[in-house]
Amino acid sequence: MTHAETHDREQGRVLDPRYDAAGLITAVVTHHETGELLMLAHMNAAALAATLESGEATFFSRSRGRLWKKGETSGHVMRVVEARIDCDQDALWLRCDPAGPACHTGEASCFYRAIEADGRSLRPIIDPK
Amino acid sequence: MTHAETHDREQGRVLDPRYDAAGLITAVVTHHETGELLMLAHMNAAALAATLESGEATFFSRSRGRLWKKGETSGHVMRVVEARIDCDQDALWLRCDPAGPACHTGEASCFYRAIEADGRSLRPIIDPK
Repeated sequence: MTHAETHDREQGRVLDPRYDAAGLITAVVTHHETGELLMLAHMNAAALAATLESGEATFFSRSRGRLWKKGETSGHVMRVVEARIDCDQDALWLRCDPAGPACHTGEASCFYRAIEADGRSLRPIIDPK
Repeated sequence: MTHAETHDREQGRVLDPRYDAAGLITAVVTHHETGELLMLAHMNAAALAATLESGEATFFSRSRGRLWKKGETSGHVMRVVEARIDCDQDALWLRCDPAGPACHTGEASCFYRAIEADGRSLRPIIDPK
C-alpha cells in the first residue's frame, strides 16, 4: 500500500475490510456488557454483509465451507450491539448480546481455561453464571 | 484428530496450542479491567514462551519476521494479568494491564471506529480517557 492508501484505511470513514488470501477476516466476539471474550471466528464478505444486515452474527465456517449463522441450530444467536473494525481493517470486533452459550462445549465462553504460572498446565475458570 | 484427541484438547489440563501452517496462533488482547478489546496479534511458540516467562506480551511480527515485544521501543508494554486459551486451543486471550496506547496510531485501542448502520461508513469512537 502507498502511504496515502494506508492513511485512508487507518483514518478514513469508509469500511474497506482487508480480507486474507482465503477471503476471510477474523472476528472477535465479546459480551457487550461484561467485556468477556466469548469466541473467535472468521467472516468472508458475505458473512459480514449478512451480519450487518440482520444484526445477528454470521460467520464463514472453514470446516463446512459455508456461511454459518451462529445459533442456526442451537438458537443461541448473537445479537450485535456494536461492530467495530481495527486500524488496518483486518479484524472485526463484535460486541454482542448472546442468547446462550458461545461455545459448542456448553460453556458461556470458549475461553474457559487459564494458563497456569508454570506455562504448561491449564486451570478451569469457574463460570460466574 | 481422533475423538479422544479432540476430547483431551478441549477438556484437558495441558497447554497444547494448535499453531497454523505458518506456526502462528492468534492472540486477543483486552484491558483486564474494562474488557475493552485493545489489539489482535500473532504468536509463534517462542513468542508465547517469552510472554509466559516474562509476564509481558511478546508477539511474532509477520511484517518484520521476528519476535516483537510490545512496547520494546515505545515503552508501552502490556503486563499480562491472565492468559487463557480457547476450546480447541487455536486462540489465546491475554487480559492485560497496558502501560500506554495499544495502537501505533496513538489510540488506546486499535478498534477506534464503529461500523454505522448503513454497513458502509465508519464512526470514530470517542476515547473515554
